[in-house]
Amino acid sequence: MPDPSLLETFESPTKTPFLIEHINEEFTSVCPVTGHPDFGVITLRYEPANCCVELKSLKLYFQSFRNEGIYYEAVTNQIRDDLVASMQPSWLEVKTSWKGRGGIRSNITASFGDEHSSSNI
Amino acid sequence: MPDPSLLETFESPTKTPFLIEHINEEFTSVCPVTGHPDFGVITLRYEPANCCVELKSLKLYFQSFRNEGIYYEAVTNQIRDDLVASMQPSWLEVKTSWKGRGGIRSNITASFGDEHSSSNI
Amino acid sequence: MPDPSLLETFESPTKTPFLIEHINEEFTSVCPVTGHPDFGVITLRYEPANCCVELKSLKLYFQSFRNEGIYYEAVTNQIRDDLVASMQPSWLEVKTSWKGRGGIRSNITASFGDEHSSSNI
Amino acid sequence: MPDPSLLETFESPTKTPFLIEHINEEFTSVCPVTGHPDFGVITLRYEPANCCVELKSLKLYFQSFRNEGIYYEAVTNQIRDDLVASMQPSWLEVKTSWKGRGGIRSNITASFGDEHSSSNI
Amino acid sequence: MPDPSLLETFESPTKTPFLIEHINEEFTSVCPVTGHPDFGVITLRYEPANCCVELKSLKLYFQSFRNEGIYYEAVTNQIRDDLVASMQPSWLEVKTSWKGRGGIRSNITASFGDEHSSSNI
Amino acid sequence: MPDPSLLETFESPTKTPFLIEHINEEFTSVCPVTGHPDFGVITLRYEPANCCVELKSLKLYFQSFRNEGIYYEAVTNQIRDDLVASMQPSWLEVKTSWKGRGGIRSNITASFGDEHSSSNI
Amino acid sequence: MPDPSLLETFESPTKTPFLIEHINEEFTSVCPVTGHPDFGVITLRYEPANCCVELKSLKLYFQSFRNEGIYYEAVTNQIRDDLVASMQPSWLEVKTSWKGRGGIRSNITASFGDEHSSSNI
Amino acid sequence: MPDPSLLETFESPTKTPFLIEHINEEFTSVCPVTGHPDFGVITLRYEPANCCVELKSLKLYFQSFRNEGIYYEAVTNQIRDDLVASMQPSWLEVKTSWKGRGGIRSNITASFGDEHSSSNI
Amino acid sequence: MPDPSLLETFESPTKTPFLIEHINEEFTSVCPVTGHPDFGVITLRYEPANCCVELKSLKLYFQSFRNEGIYYEAVTNQIRDDLVASMQPSWLEVKTSWKGRGGIRSNITASFGDEHSSSNI
Amino acid sequence: MPDPSLLETFESPTKTPFLIEHINEEFTSVCPVTGHPDFGVITLRYEPANCCVELKSLKLYFQSFRNEGIYYEAVTNQIRDDLVASMQPSWLEVKTSWKGRGGIRSNITASFGDEHSSSNI
Repeated sequence: MPDPSLLETFESPTKTPFLIEHINEEFTSVCPVTGHPDFGVITLRYEPANCCVELKSLKLYFQSFRNEGIYYEAVTNQIRDDLVASMQPSWLEVKTSWKGRGGIRSNITASFGDEHSSSNI
Repeated sequence: MPDPSLLETFESPTKTPFLIEHINEEFTSVCPVTGHPDFGVITLRYEPANCCVELKSLKLYFQSFRNEGIYYEAVTNQIRDDLVASMQPSWLEVKTSWKGRGGIRSNITASFGDEHSSSNI
Repeated sequence: MPDPSLLETFESPTKTPFLIEHINEEFTSVCPVTGHPDFGVITLRYEPANCCVELKSLKLYFQSFRNEGIYYEAVTNQIRDDLVASMQPSWLEVKTSWKGRGGIRSNITASFGDEHSSSNI
Repeated sequence: MPDPSLLETFESPTKTPFLIEHINEEFTSVCPVTGHPDFGVITLRYEPANCCVELKSLKLYFQSFRNEGIYYEAVTNQIRDDLVASMQPSWLEVKTSWKGRGGIRSNITASFGDEHSSSNI
Repeated sequence: MPDPSLLETFESPTKTPFLIEHINEEFTSVCPVTGHPDFGVITLRYEPANCCVELKSLKLYFQSFRNEGIYYEAVTNQIRDDLVASMQPSWLEVKTSWKGRGGIRSNITASFGDEHSSSNI
Repeated sequence: MPDPSLLETFESPTKTPFLIEHINEEFTSVCPVTGHPDFGVITLRYEPANCCVELKSLKLYFQSFRNEGIYYEAVTNQIRDDLVASMQPSWLEVKTSWKGRGGIRSNITASFGDEHSSSNI
Repeated sequence: MPDPSLLETFESPTKTPFLIEHINEEFTSVCPVTGHPDFGVITLRYEPANCCVELKSLKLYFQSFRNEGIYYEAVTNQIRDDLVASMQPSWLEVKTSWKGRGGIRSNITASFGDEHSSSNI
Repeated sequence: MPDPSLLETFESPTKTPFLIEHINEEFTSVCPVTGHPDFGVITLRYEPANCCVELKSLKLYFQSFRNEGIYYEAVTNQIRDDLVASMQPSWLEVKTSWKGRGGIRSNITASFGDEHSSSNI
Repeated sequence: MPDPSLLETFESPTKTPFLIEHINEEFTSVCPVTGHPDFGVITLRYEPANCCVELKSLKLYFQSFRNEGIYYEAVTNQIRDDLVASMQPSWLEVKTSWKGRGGIRSNITASFGDEHSSSNI
Repeated sequence: MPDPSLLETFESPTKTPFLIEHINEEFTSVCPVTGHPDFGVITLRYEPANCCVELKSLKLYFQSFRNEGIYYEAVTNQIRDDLVASMQPSWLEVKTSWKGRGGIRSNITASFGDEHSSSNI
């Protein structure tokens, strides 16, 4: 099951605002209605305040959704909430793009805070 | 015939505004004038208020148009109206793109409410 | 000859503003100077007020130009005028793109009314 | 030699502003310095006031540059001037794009009047 | 008028068979029926025997067709014949590809001799 | 109606076998069943024996099908037969590719004689 | 060595502002540190005041850098300065794009004056 | 280990603001957690004040990260800090794009100072 | 001037036949007729017998043509001959592709020996 | 340094011939002449006889070249030889594609044994 305790952080190398983007093209969870696997791409963008998420721990956290029956919308918001709790960033955005099922493909976007103007690149 | 009672919703996982997009590339209905089948792509985008549409129920709802004789314009507006009645979202937009018939191809767009600025992503 | 009486309309399924686009990639008329055939693509976009143009009637109306000797500019404005008279839409735009003749290819655009801001999609 | 008397016009089919574009991909003239042929694409865009340029006459006018020794910059401005004198349009723009010579390729743009906002499509 | 005396050759730098290709994307002549200009691409491929055609002289030879009224088929065969007479190559092929006129575009191919197997690259 | 008397020929510029290809991307005729227009691309390839078809006459011949109610298969074979009768070529092939109607698009090929091996390019 | 005396100008054919672009895809100079050749693309855009640079003289001027040991940054600024001195244009911009060396590729941009709003096309 | 003393500068050829971009597509360092190699693209953009970074010295500086165990975020900020200390530019931006590891690929952006409006090209 | 003494070789790491390809996209020499620079791409493919050409020496050898007035055909054959003399390979092929001059672009191919069947990849 | 003892194998799951392909897009070694890093893509294809190479061990083996000064040709043949010694496959092919240095990019191919006809995919 999704396990936010897997998330580890390290101190940001700078106090100057900057922008970080991690794209996971190999995310999978399970549909809570049909039990079939879902496959998606997770795009995480954030501006750190005091700390950054460590990449291997992020990978393990994403992998902890593998056998969880959970809606697309809930995946997106839980990742947003777990990462905000773990890092307390200045700004954070999670976009999820899901491969088609039953002829329908889906994209969900959730965010936290206001994007810093200088990082709007 | 189109059956909005097929639509099921579940409680939104968050009160924070976010953006959902479902794209159905396998929609079919029937031309009310000629009786020939029509094929189209439905792109649904919305910001939930209190609930989200369940994906399997959305698929069955779209499939209920299969043998209905109905204009492109009516399909687009009925989907808009049925989903607004079912979910009462903050904002919703339906775009339909139809393969050519008689050398003419068509695109229709209908919307509800004002898009939230932070979801303009 | 171009016959606007072929155009039929049906009542718009909604009073809410929405956007309709019909693209005819198989339009042909005749050059009034040389008598040679012209081939073009007609892109019609409009926001209905009270009624929509029926698609099969639109096809027959477009086919009625087949043997008419008429300038590109006149085709474009006549389609604009005939459709405005038939539907009295809130806004309408006609673009015509013509295959090359004598090494020159042409595009003509004519419009009616002001585009509704919410349909600027 | 370039012969603006070849240009013929016909009365515009409407008083409503609209936009016309003619693209000649087979333009050739001669370099006044080296005597070698130049090859270019002429893109003409304009909003008619009272009349439009007839397409076959435009083709013959463009062909009249075939054996003229003339700079790229002069071609562009002469076409602008001859068409403005012939049609007195509301707005007109001429872009010329020339194939490379000696490893250098060139693009020149000249215009007349102010583009009508509603035709900015 | 087409002037084969413009063609100059230089001694081939080797007796070993090899393959040469020259592509002229800026060829123009005149239609003998309508008097309108034709535009084409000439692709020349050959295996020299004792001499090669000099490139600047080839350019001037191609330019000598500029105001000649001549069929596509005759252009292709005359270039083949003039170059064979000038160079006496082991093998030679001329392909011409013409821009569309009246909605029709054309390609013509003529050759001389048998292509050497080792140059079949 | 299709009029083979429009076809004119001129003497081939050479007795050496060579290959000619004419592609008409603006062919239109009428469906004999529904009365609706058909749009297609005609690709003609041939090796002349003693004469070649003149291009402007070929264009007028193709235009003579404009208002003829005729099957795809009949168009293809009639063009083959009319051109063989007019030119008596060594080899000739007609391919027709038709835009989709009712979701189906079609390609037809008919030929005459044996292709000369050296023109198999 | 770079020789601005090669630059020749001719009187602008008009006093109306217009835009000229010359793109040289075959520029080469020499690295002042390693002595190895550098290869780049020079894009020159300007609005003439009273005169234009003649194209053949521009080609010879660019060729005069062929064996000069000079930094990318200095090439860009020298071309800007030499052309401004030669033509005194209203506005001028030089962009240089260099092929990779040591795994690094570079782009440099320098400009003079303010671009005229109507030529911002 | 990363060695900023490798960075050499030369005096800027002009006091006029201009824009420099260097793109290194062959950057590699080592993951401090797993010890596996990381591969990335570094895009450096800056406006010089008094001096520019010499390209060969920049290459050697980038190569000095080859066997360093260092986070993506720290690489990005260290390059920003070392180049700012070395050149004291008006404005500088470093973007790093990393190939995927564990299914996740990352992009980091850090900047210094305010971009000059005229160089916003 | 072209200097084959720059070419250095090293012993092939194996006696088993294998295939080597070097592509130089930055070749330049000078036209012996006009004195203007030529730019080309050299593609060298070979199967070594006992030794391979060292890459830096190959680069310096290619650079030695920089200011040589020499025909395309002679460049191609000289590179073939110099490399065959230097390496005595089992099989070797040189293709040169030249940017257009006067509207004509050229490709030349020369080879030595018979390609080993197992390396026909 | 390159360490073939890192390679581990496991028993092939079948005696039926089949085809395996591993593509490493993150290979790096060092130039033995200049000391600068080289970057390449290794494509390994083979048909196992009795055993297959274990993927993590292959990754560590490839990483062992990271700081080795070695020619492209030697890298390619050593990988071929080490894998043949380790696995004794029916057939094996190694292709290496190297990023450009000094304007030259290279591809090397070495193979072992005869490819089984059924795996010619």
